[in-house]
Amino acid sequence: MHANKNSFIIDAKWLIPVVPEGTVLEDSSLVISNNLIIDICPHQQAHDNYPHLAIEDLTQHAVMPGLINTHGHAAMTLLRGYADDKALMEWLENYIWPIESTLVSYDFVYDGTLLAIAEMISSGTTCTADSYFFPDAVAAAFHDQKFRAQVACPVVQFPTNWANDEEEHISKAMLFYERYKQHPHIYPAIAPHAPYSVSDRGFEEIAKHSKAHNIPVHLHLHETVGELQTETGQRPLQRIYDHGLFNSLLQTVHMTQLNDAEIQLLAANQVHVAHCPDSNLKLASGFCPVDKLRHKGVNVAVGTDGAASNNNLDMLAEIRSATLLSKGVTLDPTSISAAQALSMGTINGAKLLGIEDQVGSLEIGKQADVIAIDMSSFELQPVHNPISQIVYSANGNHVSDVWINGQQLLKHRKLTQLDTTALTDKVNMWRQSIRQIST
Amino acid sequence: MHANKNSFIIDAKWLIPVVPEGTVLEDSSLVISNNLIIDICPHQQAHDNYPHLAIEDLTQHAVMPGLINTHGHAAMTLLRGYADDKALMEWLENYIWPIESTLVSYDFVYDGTLLAIAEMISSGTTCTADSYFFPDAVAAAFHDQKFRAQVACPVVQFPTNWANDEEEHISKAMLFYERYKQHPHIYPAIAPHAPYSVSDRGFEEIAKHSKAHNIPVHLHLHETVGELQTETGQRPLQRIYDHGLFNSLLQTVHMTQLNDAEIQLLAANQVHVAHCPDSNLKLASGFCPVDKLRHKGVNVAVGTDGAASNNNLDMLAEIRSATLLSKGVTLDPTSISAAQALSMGTINGAKLLGIEDQVGSLEIGKQADVIAIDMSSFELQPVHNPISQIVYSANGNHVSDVWINGQQLLKHRKLTQLDTTALTDKVNMWRQSIRQIST
Repeated sequence: MHANKNSFIIDAKWLIPVVPEGTVLEDSSLVISNNLIIDICPHQQAHDNYPHLAIEDLTQHAVMPGLINTHGHAAMTLLRGYADDKALMEWLENYIWPIESTLVSYDFVYDGTLLAIAEMISSGTTCTADSYFFPDAVAAAFHDQKFRAQVACPVVQFPTNWANDEEEHISKAMLFYERYKQHPHIYPAIAPHAPYSVSDRGFEEIAKHSKAHNIPVHLHLHETVGELQTETGQRPLQRIYDHGLFNSLLQTVHMTQLNDAEIQLLAANQVHVAHCPDSNLKLASGFCPVDKLRHKGVNVAVGTDGAASNNNLDMLAEIRSATLLSKGVTLDPTSISAAQALSMGTINGAKLLGIEDQVGSLEIGKQADVIAIDMSSFELQPVHNPISQIVYSANGNHVSDVWINGQQLLKHRKLTQLDTTALTDKVNMWRQSIRQIST
Repeated sequence: MHANKNSFIIDAKWLIPVVPEGTVLEDSSLVISNNLIIDICPHQQAHDNYPHLAIEDLTQHAVMPGLINTHGHAAMTLLRGYADDKALMEWLENYIWPIESTLVSYDFVYDGTLLAIAEMISSGTTCTADSYFFPDAVAAAFHDQKFRAQVACPVVQFPTNWANDEEEHISKAMLFYERYKQHPHIYPAIAPHAPYSVSDRGFEEIAKHSKAHNIPVHLHLHETVGELQTETGQRPLQRIYDHGLFNSLLQTVHMTQLNDAEIQLLAANQVHVAHCPDSNLKLASGFCPVDKLRHKGVNVAVGTDGAASNNNLDMLAEIRSATLLSKGVTLDPTSISAAQALSMGTINGAKLLGIEDQVGSLEIGKQADVIAIDMSSFELQPVHNPISQIVYSANGNHVSDVWINGQQLLKHRKLTQLDTTALTDKVNMWRQSIRQIST
C-alpha cells in the first residue's frame, strides 16, 4: 500500500453506508484506494491495517454516499429566480421560451452547467441526471469538473437552437451516444421531452435505438392533469407503453397523475420514477403517489428539477420535502422514514441510472463518491439519531467535504478545482444578457 | 450625532423593507441610532448626512427585517431527532411524555431555550413566540441573550412538572404576567394548550384575565381531524368563540381543519393564525387553508413549531414551505408570491404578536431588528430578483449578520454574545441524560 492522494482513510464519527438501510456505524473508517472503497472498519483497525495511508479526520461528521439527483436541467441555473409565481403557460411563453430561443447556445449551456456543478458539489450531490440542449456543452462541463452525470440528449418535434426538427434531434443524440458510450463517468442517454412534444414516429425511433444499444430513456410523464387530455383520449402513459418503451431503461419524471393499473404496469416492467417534490409544488402540478409506488415495488428516486422551477439544487432539502410531503398527503406520519428518504436520495438514484454496481452506497468495491456532513453546528445538535438529523434538520450548507471517484472536490466547504472567480464573472455576464432581453 | 456602537449605518446592496410589500431598494442604507431606524436613503446620502457614524459594508447582501417565528417550544430543541416517523400517540406516549415527566426542569428549559436561541440567531430569526413549562426559565434565557420573544405560560388541566393542576397553571401564569409586563423585549402571554386539554372553567378564567389586562392568548386549535370529534359534538373553534376569546389578542396555531363559516368568524373578529407547514406535514395533520384565509382578510403568520416535530427552526425554510405548499394544495402556482411569503415571515408575525408598531419591517421609527443575507454564494446566483432568491433559494445558513434592538448578535456568521463552548457542553450533558432514560 503506497501513500498517494487517491488512497486514504476517512475517520468518521458516524458512517452511514445506506446499504443496509438505516445502518449507522459509529467511530468507523472508510478506506479508499485508487478511487475505490476497499475497506470499512473501526478507526483503530483501519490505522493498524493501512499504516501508510493519510487520515482524513472527520470525527464530528457523518459520512455517507454522495447524493444522486435524478432530474435536472443544469444550464437553467442561470435563470434561477428570473420568473416565479407565474401560471405555467405565462411562465413558458413570456419568460422561458424567449430566453431559450435568443440566448441558449453552447457557451450559455457550458457556463450554466458549471454554475450548477458548483452548487451541487457544495451541497453534497456527486451525480446528476441532466437533459438540456447542447448536450456536448453539458458533457464538457461535467467532464472538465470530474463530475459524474447521465447526460441525456433532448428530443422535441419543433425546432430548437440545437436542432431543426425531431429527426435531427434524434440523429444528434445518436452521435452523442457514440461519442460518450465509453466515458468513465459520463453516461449518455436520450430524453424525449414529453408525450405532447414528441411524435409517434419519434418514440418508435427512440425505442428502437434504446433496445439496440441499451440506452436509458429519460422522459417527463404525467407531470400535470392537463397533459392527460389528449386528442385520442388515450392516456400518455399507455401510449409510451404501446411504443414498447416500458422496461428498466425507462426513467419517468414527475408522475403526479397515476391510477392503480398504471402503477401496476410500472412495477411489472421495472420502470423507474424520478420524484421532484419541490418543483411539483412550486408549479402546482399535483402529488406523485410515492408511498403507493414504493409499496408496489417501483423504484422511486428524487430529483430537484432545474433551478428555474425549484429554485435550488439542494438534494438534502429535496429528500426532506419528499418525506414530509408523503406524510402530509397520505395523512400517515410513518410514511417514508428518514432512512428510506436517504435511500431515495442515493442508492435508488443509482438504480434508476443503472449504475448501482458502481455508486449509491458505501460498500467495498464501489467507487468512492463520498460526502461528509459537519454535525457540530447548533442547528444539528444534539445528535440523538444522525440519520434523522441529516434528513430532517440538515441542508446542503452543512456538507463540508465531497469526493467523487476518490477525488476531493470540496474541502472544508471550499471548492478545490473550480475557478470560482472566472465562474462569478461569467454568471454576471449572463445575468446582464438576460436582463437586456427581458427589458 | 455621536459615534457609538448603537449608532451606525448599514450599506446594503439590496434593502428590502417588507413594507411596502415587494419593494427592493438597490444600493441603499439603513441608518440606526440608539437602537432605532432613523433613516433609509441611498448610500452617498447616508454617508453625507451622518458623517460620524461607522459603516457596515454589506454590499453583496440583502438586508431585511428579522424573521418572526410565531410558534415554537424552544426547550424542545433538546429533543430534536429523538423520535421521528412515529404515529402521534406513540410519539407522545412512548417518547415525549416520559422525557417531559422525568427530565423537564428549570435547567432543562433554560439550556434548551439557549440552544434554540443559538439556532434562531444563526438563521435570522429575531423574535419568537414561545410556550413551554417553566416560563421563567424561558424568559431568563431570552432576557440574558437580548432576544425578543413572546413568552406564553402553558395551561393544561393535568399535573405537569411545573404546576399541579389547571388552577395553579393559571395563577402561575398571572404571576409571570405581572413580573414581565413592563419588560422591554419579553412579552408575557398565556397559552391554554388546546381545547381537549383545558376545561371550560379554565377557558373562562383565561378569557377574563386576557380582557382585563390585554393579555395575548396563544392556542393550538384544529390541528388534526381527530380533535374535531368532541363529546358534545360541538367543534372546538365554536367552543372557544363561545367563551368570548375571539378578538385580536387570540393567536390560533395550526388550523388545518376550517370550514368557510369558521374562516368568516376568524376574519370578522381579527383572530390571527400561526401557520406551521413543516410540522403539519411531518405529523400528517392536514393542510391549513392559507390562501383562503388571506383572501378573507385573516392575518396569517408562520411558525416552525418545536424542533421535536420539524426538526429545525429555520424560518427561511419555513416560509418557502408555506408558499410551495399553498401552490401545491390549491393547484395554483400564483398562490402566495415570494413577497407575500416574506411578509408572512416578518410583518404578519409582528401583527400577530401585537408589536407591529415596533418591529416586522424596516421603517423609520421602528426598532432595529435587522438581518443580512449574503447573496454571493453560487447557490444564490445569479440575482435576477433578490426577493425570489431569499424565499425560494436561500436558507438560514445564508444569514450572515443579525441585529436585535440595534445590538449585533451575529457577525459574519459568528455568535457575538453567546458562550458557545458552555452551551455545547450542556447540550451534550442533556443528550446523555435523555439517552439514559430511553434505554
